Amino acid sequence: LNAAAEYAARERQRQLTKPPGSLGRLEDLAVRLAAMQGSERPCVDPAWISVFAADHGVAASGVSAYPQEVTAQMVANFAHGGAAISVLARLWGASLEVVDVGVARPLPGLPSVVAARAGEGTANFLAGAAMTEAQLALAMAAGREAAERAWRAGSRLFIGGEMGIGNTTSASVLACALLKLDAAVLVGPGTGLDQAGVARKREAVERALRLHGEDAGQPHGALLRLGGFEIAALCGAYLRCAQLGLPALVDGFIASVALLCAERWVEGVSAWCLFGHRSKEPGHAVVLAALGADPLLDLGMRLGEGSGAAAALPLLQAACALHNGMATFAEAGVAEA
Amino acid sequence: LNAAAEYAARERQRQLTKPPGSLGRLEDLAVRLAAMQGSERPCVDPAWISVFAADHGVAASGVSAYPQEVTAQMVANFAHGGAAISVLARLWGASLEVVDVGVARPLPGLPSVVAARAGEGTANFLAGAAMTEAQLALAMAAGREAAERAWRAGSRLFIGGEMGIGNTTSASVLACALLKLDAAVLVGPGTGLDQAGVARKREAVERALRLHGEDAGQPHGALLRLGGFEIAALCGAYLRCAQLGLPALVDGFIASVALLCAERWVEGVSAWCLFGHRSKEPGHAVVLAALGADPLLDLGMRLGEGSGAAAALPLLQAACALHNGMATFAEAGVAEA
Repeated sequence: LNAAAEYAARERQRQLTKPPGSLGRLEDLAVRLAAMQGSERPCVDPAWISVFAADHGVAASGVSAYPQEVTAQMVANFAHGGAAISVLARLWGASLEVVDVGVARPLPGLPSVVAARAGEGTANFLAGAAMTEAQLALAMAAGREAAERAWRAGSRLFIGGEMGIGNTTSASVLACALLKLDAAVLVGPGTGLDQAGVARKREAVERALRLHGEDAGQPHGALLRLGGFEIAALCGAYLRCAQLGLPALVDGFIASVALLCAERWVEGVSAWCLFGHRSKEPGHAVVLAALGADPLLDLGMRLGEGSGAAAALPLLQAACALHNGMATFAEAGVAEA
Repeated sequence: LNAAAEYAARERQRQLTKPPGSLGRLEDLAVRLAAMQGSERPCVDPAWISVFAADHGVAASGVSAYPQEVTAQMVANFAHGGAAISVLARLWGASLEVVDVGVARPLPGLPSVVAARAGEGTANFLAGAAMTEAQLALAMAAGREAAERAWRAGSRLFIGGEMGIGNTTSASVLACALLKLDAAVLVGPGTGLDQAGVARKREAVERALRLHGEDAGQPHGALLRLGGFEIAALCGAYLRCAQLGLPALVDGFIASVALLCAERWVEGVSAWCLFGHRSKEPGHAVVLAALGADPLLDLGMRLGEGSGAAAALPLLQAACALHNGMATFAEAGVAEA
């Protein structure tokens, strides 16, 4: 983080035609982005969105309200522009790509889908490790490469999204293992399980913790045994964003668990992150607290895909536009307090 | 409100490619706007912003951190595009006009400033009534006419903003009178008073309540005795928006007090309103609670000008774009739960 740019941006904020502090968190956002980008005049446009999609062996254990085919069907929906994240990307002028990190069956040629498959979905972690070392390396590389594509394209902000039926189960057990918490604290309804479904999911998480907990206290072991390819990819993307100095706007529960893995991998990674929203999925609050994060929006969203981050993107755009576009007291001839 | 359009919009939300309810309040916003606009496919573009500016006699009693000249200086800043609301209007493609309802000294010809002057600022309500009946009528008409200009221009959403040194004092005493509350509950730092300044402001509000409280329990008497021209104009604008069926997005403390006046004037007016943000000014929470309102943003903003509503405008744009632009399960060939 660039202290000189941060200082210059804070000085500029004090000269803009408004009572000091009266734009609240929009002022802090501009200053944070200035520090991250090393520029007194930060900018988040163009923004880049990579949605990582993969399937989960644990989906066979009845932990989701939706059948596994929906992962591939939604990838097609992203590619054809009909999903929530597609609409938001168009609305705010962000680039959108979908990265197939391992949907169960290979997808036919779809526009703007990048093939970076680590396998045909993970194995069911109720029976063994979710993935091999080689698969973990491939999935994390897929995320790093997405961050690099964003950087090379001149993007000023990275948003990572995810799609994968069963992935709130994987994220819940990852968070339990890393934070040493009980399943009951982390497990929630995901895409919309009823009470019996949540109980089934909690039992699955408890079984997975009994089987893998010992070896899953650090992020490498946790992702290997309990991860999803898309969660490993997000972890790789956040690690690479921090190396590149590319600010990341973090989405909901699953993205935050991926960032928790990245932060445990390399301390300080989350300093390059801003947090878009507080998901309705109950585990998100726990993970946000562990990351010391206070998201911008709290609108009861729980969709994933990067949609909660994309919903907050205009606030970052506004923060930058205000910071760069408002007149100073001197320019406008306005008296100060 | 149109129940058929509301029903049709709710049905459409259930068919979009996402778990039901997973877009949280963005779904509710789309359905509310559909009911207000009488259309299954709501839209908030183009949005219209009128900023009402006026001066306050009570400013002479040392209740603000800024000198009275700042009102006129900021009107010039709005007109020249350098203020926060100017930047946000440009960013989100909203029309912006400034309405001079009574700045202390007439302003030279400025672009996009509408002259609708009810006087040369209000009288100091610590010595008598803030305005005459004729002035109140003029100020409220200025607001009604702004809503009509928005409507005639084909705008789909109205945002009212305000500028007037001293107007948090007027808004605080109005809220105290209408809600029968003590000054201590409503009075805050406004643009940035220190502790001694807040104490002085509280004493002014208490004196005003002793002088006028009896005659200020209903909105007409309250605005006449304690109002500002810009607050009366906002009240008139909200009343007219409800008559026209034009949704209004309400800004912070002062705008909410104006809406409280309108709601007490004609019950049900606030059904045509959405609430942009929760201001840091402490009295705002009290007024929001009285209106039963739960704003979209809580970012510690406290600037006025309509800036908190304008910051929330992209969330309404997103809600409409998602509602109108997402594919249905049938269109996308995605399996349902």
